[in-house]
Amino acid sequence: MPTNETLHLLTHHRSIRHFKAQPIPEPLIKQLLKAAQRTSTSVFMQQYSIISVTDPKLKKAFAEITTYPFTQSNGHLFIMIADQHRNEVIGTAAHAKTQLLHDADRSLAAFDDATLAGQSIVTAAESLGLGAVILGSILNDAQRVIDLLQLPKLTFPVFGIAVGYPDEHPDLKPRLPLASVHFENTYQEPDPKILDSYDQTIKTYYAQRNNHNREETFRHHIVHDMQLSPKKRSQILTVLKNQGFFEN
Amino acid sequence: MPTNETLHLLTHHRSIRHFKAQPIPEPLIKQLLKAAQRTSTSVFMQQYSIISVTDPKLKKAFAEITTYPFTQSNGHLFIMIADQHRNEVIGTAAHAKTQLLHDADRSLAAFDDATLAGQSIVTAAESLGLGAVILGSILNDAQRVIDLLQLPKLTFPVFGIAVGYPDEHPDLKPRLPLASVHFENTYQEPDPKILDSYDQTIKTYYAQRNNHNREETFRHHIVHDMQLSPKKRSQILTVLKNQGFFEN
Repeated sequence: MPTNETLHLLTHHRSIRHFKAQPIPEPLIKQLLKAAQRTSTSVFMQQYSIISVTDPKLKKAFAEITTYPFTQSNGHLFIMIADQHRNEVIGTAAHAKTQLLHDADRSLAAFDDATLAGQSIVTAAESLGLGAVILGSILNDAQRVIDLLQLPKLTFPVFGIAVGYPDEHPDLKPRLPLASVHFENTYQEPDPKILDSYDQTIKTYYAQRNNHNREETFRHHIVHDMQLSPKKRSQILTVLKNQGFFEN
Repeated sequence: MPTNETLHLLTHHRSIRHFKAQPIPEPLIKQLLKAAQRTSTSVFMQQYSIISVTDPKLKKAFAEITTYPFTQSNGHLFIMIADQHRNEVIGTAAHAKTQLLHDADRSLAAFDDATLAGQSIVTAAESLGLGAVILGSILNDAQRVIDLLQLPKLTFPVFGIAVGYPDEHPDLKPRLPLASVHFENTYQEPDPKILDSYDQTIKTYYAQRNNHNREETFRHHIVHDMQLSPKKRSQILTVLKNQGFFEN
């Protein structure tokens, strides 16, 4: 198979959650943001914003929300924001109709833009020898994040990204066999035999990995995780609508 | 500023919409998929699928839906799918509750996973000298895409990605000034002076670029685009709910 530095990075990604007490120089942060900004954006609308959380009080709050203490210690914390507010301000100033910005279509576009840019930050960070983890756990309390960052209507926190100098080197976590996620022309139902084999792979991985070894298969994990949701995560639709998204 | 091969790629992205009549060798497609699979995924749920559209009849349909004829000619067409169906099958087989998969929380997680993996495909493609464009335009008729690809409940087409050997070299399109999209600790309202200056930048870019030059500012573009939506794009929320997403 052909390879290169970038492919090597992309195919060796692991989430890093422990960072050294070594601050990231400002020029590197700028490079990460530059990579984010150059990312594809839906219809060239640039419907996202990025907030760097540097205030220790705010970082402490994010450690509580995410339940990850590392978000308040070493490393840089970005929050990716789906943002149709900027466009609404532009539209309102031009006395234009802005109702479409509240549609599911534009809501998804804003989430897409923020998510695509976020993945560029992760890849850019890894290219610089930094580690990163995407923190969907900020949605354990979306409303509190909105209040903390003073997010106006038509903005929403999509996920956080913690970036820093790696202080761990986790094993690569095996992914589903390609046949389970890639199809040609037509969607294919999951094949129980492939899932059986993948369950064994994951069981072996968890038993043998360097840190936090445990006994679990992929299907156990999936089933366990759909039984219970933190209370505020089941209220996300309400928060989305309060922010003006997915109205129509 | 520090740089490397990957940063160079990320900060020089341009969407490519014209491809040479040179098929992408299968090992390269496999590398793109490998990069996609290694991408971060919410709570290790891998809530996405990828469909390669190779059937000429289907490609013709996508050219109609997207209004981009290039999707049916040269290049490889991926459709990124938000997928909670696989998890529902796993949950149902285990006689587990699966209702949570229909929540906005899990809906967003599936869209995140598909989107993050899609961005890795774009970056991986560019590292191999290929060009790519993300096609949000498949949502011009989401229901037709669902029918064409036989997508079951709890799956949804997020966007397409066309990849191929570039047959154009567009100029880099200037992005919003960093101060408009990156804030520290607190959301900042758009600054009209920065937007004035950016409008001039975009006007100059459109006037001078190699192909398709026109007269337009960023704010004209934003305002124009929020006045009218293709009819079926304003029905996306209905299709999302029919597919079982954003129920709660």
